[in-house]
Amino acid sequence: MRLSRAFLPTLKETPAEAQIASHRLMLRAGMIRQTSAGIYAWLPLGLRVLRNIERIVREEQDRAGAQEILMPTIQPAELWRESGRYDDYGKEMLRIRDRHDREMLFGPTNEEMVTDLFKSFAKSYRDLPRSLYHIQWKFRDEVRPRFGVMRGREFLMKDAYSFDLTPEGARHSYHQMFVAYLRTFARMGLKAIPMRADTGPIGGDLSHEFIILAETGESQVFLHRDLLDYDPLSEAPDYNSDLSPQVEFWTRRYAATEDLHDEAAWNAVPEAERVSARGIEVGHIFYFGTKYSKAMGLQVSGPDGAMVTPEMGSYGVGVSRLVAAAIEANHDENGIKWPDAIAPFKLAILNLKVGDAACDALCEQILAAFPDDAVYDDRGERAGVKFADADLLGYPWQVVVGPRGAAAGKVELKRRATGEREELSLEDALQKLRG
Amino acid sequence: MRLSRAFLPTLKETPAEAQIASHRLMLRAGMIRQTSAGIYAWLPLGLRVLRNIERIVREEQDRAGAQEILMPTIQPAELWRESGRYDDYGKEMLRIRDRHDREMLFGPTNEEMVTDLFKSFAKSYRDLPRSLYHIQWKFRDEVRPRFGVMRGREFLMKDAYSFDLTPEGARHSYHQMFVAYLRTFARMGLKAIPMRADTGPIGGDLSHEFIILAETGESQVFLHRDLLDYDPLSEAPDYNSDLSPQVEFWTRRYAATEDLHDEAAWNAVPEAERVSARGIEVGHIFYFGTKYSKAMGLQVSGPDGAMVTPEMGSYGVGVSRLVAAAIEANHDENGIKWPDAIAPFKLAILNLKVGDAACDALCEQILAAFPDDAVYDDRGERAGVKFADADLLGYPWQVVVGPRGAAAGKVELKRRATGEREELSLEDALQKLRG
Repeated sequence: MRLSRAFLPTLKETPAEAQIASHRLMLRAGMIRQTSAGIYAWLPLGLRVLRNIERIVREEQDRAGAQEILMPTIQPAELWRESGRYDDYGKEMLRIRDRHDREMLFGPTNEEMVTDLFKSFAKSYRDLPRSLYHIQWKFRDEVRPRFGVMRGREFLMKDAYSFDLTPEGARHSYHQMFVAYLRTFARMGLKAIPMRADTGPIGGDLSHEFIILAETGESQVFLHRDLLDYDPLSEAPDYNSDLSPQVEFWTRRYAATEDLHDEAAWNAVPEAERVSARGIEVGHIFYFGTKYSKAMGLQVSGPDGAMVTPEMGSYGVGVSRLVAAAIEANHDENGIKWPDAIAPFKLAILNLKVGDAACDALCEQILAAFPDDAVYDDRGERAGVKFADADLLGYPWQVVVGPRGAAAGKVELKRRATGEREELSLEDALQKLRG
Repeated sequence: MRLSRAFLPTLKETPAEAQIASHRLMLRAGMIRQTSAGIYAWLPLGLRVLRNIERIVREEQDRAGAQEILMPTIQPAELWRESGRYDDYGKEMLRIRDRHDREMLFGPTNEEMVTDLFKSFAKSYRDLPRSLYHIQWKFRDEVRPRFGVMRGREFLMKDAYSFDLTPEGARHSYHQMFVAYLRTFARMGLKAIPMRADTGPIGGDLSHEFIILAETGESQVFLHRDLLDYDPLSEAPDYNSDLSPQVEFWTRRYAATEDLHDEAAWNAVPEAERVSARGIEVGHIFYFGTKYSKAMGLQVSGPDGAMVTPEMGSYGVGVSRLVAAAIEANHDENGIKWPDAIAPFKLAILNLKVGDAACDALCEQILAAFPDDAVYDDRGERAGVKFADADLLGYPWQVVVGPRGAAAGKVELKRRATGEREELSLEDALQKLRG
């Protein structure tokens, strides 16, 4: 992608309304633009990150055996009357009347709709277990939306729903998602810790939040050091096996948000193992039994012919929120430091002297080697502007091509995360970037 | 994907409300389910087709130089007051008031928002030309939604917008999309003919509809036979070159919908070259000059310092509608016949005797060879049910594995589109499927 022809607008000044680092950086980097309070358009750079995150979420949901569907954004109010949540939900629900004066709403979540959907197809125990998920825009009419896409009104969420014949089956489905979430966030280069959570308005008796650690996080969290050191990608899970041992590794060690913090239990953790940090919630999973299946009349015939009300759980990942959370966890005073797996482009090619034949030729060669993964800064701007923009936008690698080096066939490679630089021949640089 | 564990529910009976073939077949094949009038949930099979179509649209937009963004579904009413369309749009616009009683709406299209967005970044002629597109859910509150996703209320559309300094530039952008659209539909295995169209409420003086030919199409169309015979994929376009010759091939030959049909011009076409057919609109492109840029105050500084109001065009593809249109153009009395490029799965493996060791082993080998592209019918159903379902769901290939053939290491390969069958060794069958 050539910057001279791209729609990747950066801002020199930070808009006054942005209070947190990710919001400031996303606006300055031209990733998003607010179109109404708490509602954003995603510009090309931001959209690429959003799609990378979405792809990882999807791959890990598929791997865990969940099946993708897509429910609409607009839901009928009747569904929410059946569950009793239509009145409970309050003003956060965006209520709508269509041209025939029918009561509709912009879905904030989908327990009701997926239960109704599943009901129309599942007839027998042979149709269970199933986990269904979708990745769709949701709306929550926050009274004071702020912090950019961290707490927007229209936001992209992955929500999955499990249907099981028995509580034991439902617990296994819960464990599958628990493990899938650990892998999902780890693949994004993020350290996420599951913490026991309140179930809130979803209901149920088992729930975990997944919290990304970030110095600028929204809330205080407390955890055992073991949980920081473990790498969820160190082994590939067999989702058909009993996943209790993996889950127990996480749940038997102390980990709590401020809300559920228990001083006595905390003090029982050896002092050297205690980690107190800031965190951002990016996922939330719930097991709530028959709360929705019962209210909405979902039943299947069991192996013995008797009707059974399936056990359900729901599992959310804040896809658009993760873009901001990843920045909170990966930035410095100069800008964003994207983890490789979610970076909008893998590298930026900085041509310090556009028009110099050697510089231009070298840059074109690099661009040709990474046609989809490189941004080529071919603008007629000063070197300082190009350096600052590349640091701000946070591409994992910068390839700096200046006239002196280019004459000798050399480029400078900079790793954004560490600041390390080295001068390399074009060949060695390409090999390193491929590796 | 093993059918025994999949969420791919088929219906034995056709729901009474479905009046057209694609609607009936999509419901029976378990591709969609209505959740409110004119609003649908996409089940796994339908979603796979939708994503295939979306991917082809995206690839061809990118190839033509358009850049992807993503605008939100909910828009502020003020934007539409600026263009004057807020009152014009009538009851098809889904109007919403948020908790602070601000007037919002669910976007039916995005001319206003993209113009406003572009305005905040484009300052100079160097920021032009640019084409931006997004693929997002839209809402049009049809008074009597029907025909399934062919005329739904919530629907997925790709809409692109071009910004140019001059009318000549804008015409080139229009030609780029014209050619990109021809390629887009051809890649889906669909015959699409551009036809001069009225500009309607979008405004402007140049517009074409792209019409898919299908016996069960919604409207009568008239065209020169040359247009049927030409393959848009026969040459790769250079989008930076003058595309007028390609566009003129299409525009200088007769092609018109009923609305713009001109008997005199039609009669001037040699009788043997006249084709009268049924068609379905799947794309619509517009050049409307400065209608929105002027109304919304979009200006950039020109090369001579004077301010210039950019020339704009907009370009829509009905992504969700295309799923239905593709079925209208590709089905028979037994079900769907998916074109290869958009099929939900490339092949279905029909195990006629689940539990037979040879059958099971052969089926597993085929599934392992196509882990993402095969549906394995491992259900304990009769052969007749499996044949009927595979025909209904329209996978391009069926691999039939029965006990007699399996014992000899043979399978039967059936091509859904033509009905051709042949008995082959496993190896030959795999090679043919790969080829």
